[in-house]
Amino acid sequence: MNNIIVIFSTTLFLAVSFSHAIESDFCVGDPSLPKGPGGYSCKDPANVTTDDFVFTGFRGERTTNNILGLNGTLASLSTFPALNGLGISIGKLDFGVGGHVPIHSHRTSEVIVVTKGSLIAGFIASNNVAYYKTLEVGDVMVFPKTMLHFQFNNGTTPATAFVSLNGANPGTQYVTGALFAGNLPGTLAQQITLLSEDEVMRMKTFLNTA
Amino acid sequence: MNNIIVIFSTTLFLAVSFSHAIESDFCVGDPSLPKGPGGYSCKDPANVTTDDFVFTGFRGERTTNNILGLNGTLASLSTFPALNGLGISIGKLDFGVGGHVPIHSHRTSEVIVVTKGSLIAGFIASNNVAYYKTLEVGDVMVFPKTMLHFQFNNGTTPATAFVSLNGANPGTQYVTGALFAGNLPGTLAQQITLLSEDEVMRMKTFLNTA
Amino acid sequence: MNNIIVIFSTTLFLAVSFSHAIESDFCVGDPSLPKGPGGYSCKDPANVTTDDFVFTGFRGERTTNNILGLNGTLASLSTFPALNGLGISIGKLDFGVGGHVPIHSHRTSEVIVVTKGSLIAGFIASNNVAYYKTLEVGDVMVFPKTMLHFQFNNGTTPATAFVSLNGANPGTQYVTGALFAGNLPGTLAQQITLLSEDEVMRMKTFLNTA
Amino acid sequence: MNNIIVIFSTTLFLAVSFSHAIESDFCVGDPSLPKGPGGYSCKDPANVTTDDFVFTGFRGERTTNNILGLNGTLASLSTFPALNGLGISIGKLDFGVGGHVPIHSHRTSEVIVVTKGSLIAGFIASNNVAYYKTLEVGDVMVFPKTMLHFQFNNGTTPATAFVSLNGANPGTQYVTGALFAGNLPGTLAQQITLLSEDEVMRMKTFLNTA
Amino acid sequence: MNNIIVIFSTTLFLAVSFSHAIESDFCVGDPSLPKGPGGYSCKDPANVTTDDFVFTGFRGERTTNNILGLNGTLASLSTFPALNGLGISIGKLDFGVGGHVPIHSHRTSEVIVVTKGSLIAGFIASNNVAYYKTLEVGDVMVFPKTMLHFQFNNGTTPATAFVSLNGANPGTQYVTGALFAGNLPGTLAQQITLLSEDEVMRMKTFLNTA
Amino acid sequence: MNNIIVIFSTTLFLAVSFSHAIESDFCVGDPSLPKGPGGYSCKDPANVTTDDFVFTGFRGERTTNNILGLNGTLASLSTFPALNGLGISIGKLDFGVGGHVPIHSHRTSEVIVVTKGSLIAGFIASNNVAYYKTLEVGDVMVFPKTMLHFQFNNGTTPATAFVSLNGANPGTQYVTGALFAGNLPGTLAQQITLLSEDEVMRMKTFLNTA
Repeated sequence: MNNIIVIFSTTLFLAVSFSHAIESDFCVGDPSLPKGPGGYSCKDPANVTTDDFVFTGFRGERTTNNILGLNGTLASLSTFPALNGLGISIGKLDFGVGGHVPIHSHRTSEVIVVTKGSLIAGFIASNNVAYYKTLEVGDVMVFPKTMLHFQFNNGTTPATAFVSLNGANPGTQYVTGALFAGNLPGTLAQQITLLSEDEVMRMKTFLNTA
Repeated sequence: MNNIIVIFSTTLFLAVSFSHAIESDFCVGDPSLPKGPGGYSCKDPANVTTDDFVFTGFRGERTTNNILGLNGTLASLSTFPALNGLGISIGKLDFGVGGHVPIHSHRTSEVIVVTKGSLIAGFIASNNVAYYKTLEVGDVMVFPKTMLHFQFNNGTTPATAFVSLNGANPGTQYVTGALFAGNLPGTLAQQITLLSEDEVMRMKTFLNTA
Repeated sequence: MNNIIVIFSTTLFLAVSFSHAIESDFCVGDPSLPKGPGGYSCKDPANVTTDDFVFTGFRGERTTNNILGLNGTLASLSTFPALNGLGISIGKLDFGVGGHVPIHSHRTSEVIVVTKGSLIAGFIASNNVAYYKTLEVGDVMVFPKTMLHFQFNNGTTPATAFVSLNGANPGTQYVTGALFAGNLPGTLAQQITLLSEDEVMRMKTFLNTA
Repeated sequence: MNNIIVIFSTTLFLAVSFSHAIESDFCVGDPSLPKGPGGYSCKDPANVTTDDFVFTGFRGERTTNNILGLNGTLASLSTFPALNGLGISIGKLDFGVGGHVPIHSHRTSEVIVVTKGSLIAGFIASNNVAYYKTLEVGDVMVFPKTMLHFQFNNGTTPATAFVSLNGANPGTQYVTGALFAGNLPGTLAQQITLLSEDEVMRMKTFLNTA
Repeated sequence: MNNIIVIFSTTLFLAVSFSHAIESDFCVGDPSLPKGPGGYSCKDPANVTTDDFVFTGFRGERTTNNILGLNGTLASLSTFPALNGLGISIGKLDFGVGGHVPIHSHRTSEVIVVTKGSLIAGFIASNNVAYYKTLEVGDVMVFPKTMLHFQFNNGTTPATAFVSLNGANPGTQYVTGALFAGNLPGTLAQQITLLSEDEVMRMKTFLNTA
Repeated sequence: MNNIIVIFSTTLFLAVSFSHAIESDFCVGDPSLPKGPGGYSCKDPANVTTDDFVFTGFRGERTTNNILGLNGTLASLSTFPALNGLGISIGKLDFGVGGHVPIHSHRTSEVIVVTKGSLIAGFIASNNVAYYKTLEVGDVMVFPKTMLHFQFNNGTTPATAFVSLNGANPGTQYVTGALFAGNLPGTLAQQITLLSEDEVMRMKTFLNTA
């Protein structure tokens, strides 16, 4: 019987040789190695443990007493390198009353599910039609890739939602930040938006980039 | 001034003509039309409303007093056709004490976040190494595409989790169901698993397919 | 000799049977048939002619005496259905002095080449860093997918450029149009941009959507 | 006990509802329905049987007494519609002595394995470097996608090989056929190849297209 | 005349400069360099020879006198690094009488062709419907990606088959191995399969992991 | 007020932390680092400037007094590393009278737009049907991926065109160069094309590889 077991183990090993090195099932990112268009190089699989596949950054309570009334955490490529090459990420959003995620876009589609409170959420299609609605606890909305979208807690209590995106590194771009919070000159910002010079300067002053 | 507005509107219309028909931003599935490898044909965008992009099927409480101790709902291609072509889906899992999702696989990667209770969750890589851990509220785990995985409520209270998958139609396959609950003959099931004839028959009797 | 020719023709036909139906090389879109996430259904290849593969919509001079100082034409899925499934499109942009393409984004990356005059062109990355420069005749700039970008003729003469995008239907979205020219309520526009109520109303009045 | 079985079956059904309609696992092509860039529309899964997944067209002996000394059969999209959307195809090549597959290319990569006799096989990279070698029984060679390649039985006995390509519809294009066997005018063929007028006319006469 | 040749060579060089560095046509994997989600880094193309593109590991006879009655060899990423980035692999399976490949799945679709003997082959869809049939010499079957499948020599003579998969590294996962041959605890294996404790322990003892 | 600004800046920073490291928006290639199947490793984003995204290699006049009557420049991966991972490239073609791009193919689809003079352009489908036409200034033609195609200035004046391809590294392969200008032996070239021995030797002598 022992012999059979040994033979079988060997045989199964042979069979398993059809399968491949463990790094083919996953590729936990190693930021110390070169990065390519598809993500990070893989961490040596010999050093990968279960903890690599678990993200604990959503634990605990978050405060939302800031000007956006928002606290957001994203488990994405940089904070959860196990997502490298797997094409998915997940975030937690805590909204104070009146809190919101400003209008933004990213390379991936997104689903949101509300788990506390309520939110107005919506996106705008490329023909300028806005699709928006108040979501209750348990409701899901999908935002198609690249389309501008937003979430806003217009309720009377705090709200929480989870979002998931089909990319490890969605590349979120906020319109307000892109136009006014970086190094784009105010005159250019004005010309390419048709906003008034006064408003552009007000925003840049507000964001300390005037 | 009126003239300028009209001109501008026309001009902006011209500019927007760089953009394209609304059906390019999304393709809400119409199950009454032909389906291809990439999903359903698109519903006429003239009939698309905000409600198409919102799924309310997670509302309300779910009972888990069945033999799996599980109640699961998936917002995927068939139940939420707005996902058509967008490559993402989302599910809600309610576990009773001892409840579990049996071992299964699908075409897509998955993230899970625990929102109530705790769960043992894990996956097994192609070299037979199992990565599993008890997840607390707020914890996220990722299951790489195609790898067998499971969730099990080994705690003393009910548990809830949300899962998201980077495909509109993940194609979940349960090992136990595939082997014993369908039309695969018991003799074949035995030969390709090395399980005993007795156990195969016990399972098929249990699942009413003997 | 004749026999050999016949045999050869037959033989070559057999060999060519390794190849496949003509519709596999291309799939000229037929808008009268169902459309899926990947594009239009294919026109019957028996009715496809060379003219399907040629777009003549860039011929002739264009006027730019409108408020944007811009005249743009895009050969994309809807105007040039031969692009269906091929993942590429091309546009021509004529700018008057001071003319510009307002800030926008799309699902695809883009290259621009200036063929007359000069343009300031640029994009803004997701960390709000703007990359912009004056392009001379012959210069090329690349705008990475999804990133907000713009072109502006700050020169003293009209300018012309060609753009190419790696998608048949890029889905261009203009920020100004999305926020102010459609059905998004002004109060929401204000909240999700941090712009002032006055400016939002000014824009909506200007665009006739107040 | 019976109750438990019933409950369990119901429960398992619930669990299986995470999975999706059967047509998501495969999409057997139905040529009578519209075709899109990604392939055929799916046959109604209720009418799909095991026979759809089995191709028997390689059975039996093939003659090779034609001018190419070749008999090839390809199980691809048109002859084996179960491949629709699955991105793979397989062919069988029987070579007489001196038989060959003329130089050709296709949209997909290809592996070849020799099962009888021997073959010179090779491809040419875009820098004009040819990689070619005599393959013995059991040898495998890979031809990278789009690269021109060929197989030639320079041995003294018939040869057989199987090829597999990572596309359901590779779109094989033969250089000789493209240049001389279709409707390309001889003068154009000459100009774009630098071949002599005499040789072009000799080929077109040989292929009966002069 | 010589001058023309020289000029032409130069000209052709210019023309070929439209093409690109040789490493773009292929990317033979170099396991000593970092690996990313898409595969290995490329071997220096200056050191690539024809032998890189040829795999000889299928040569010779294989014994099948082990408990599975199987001998399998796979030309995949790790054994045939020229497949790196090309998305295809090929395997040879030798079955003794009663030999079989246990039930398994992988990330890619697969075609199998029988070249000696006969085999029962099949796959199970996600709704638990099994599609299986006896294949004769020359018959091909396709197994859709991710679906559990198997091959079993129920004939009276040895059998041989070739398989091809549309991925360089399919990641084959055997159900029996995943559940019982690795480090998954028996109690978990039991709970997530509904198998009996006795059977689980019997399997783990058999596979020497109890 | 100052406080609010500071808080807001912090808040916006939090929000922007949903976005990701700048290298996710683009991946300017660094040829000194390992290259993978998807392209080069990324240049350190801290060293990326606007100049990386601008290509000036089309500036100035080009001579076409060579045997092809052609001068071509391609902004692709090797000459414009910002294209790395972005899947697009662009070229400029200057044709003398009678100048042409010999018949060739590449991994990507291509659009061409004529900006000066006129050109006969065309491609040949895998069933040997040639689609070709004379293009005037402003006309666009599309060449489906992998299909053999050509451009020829049959007009009486020089011509210029821009081409764009949906790949950063198209991998252009010229038939004439592949067959006669490299190391493929003449006897093989003859056998796999059916061209005459004399013509093959004439071509190899002409290209100095006899």
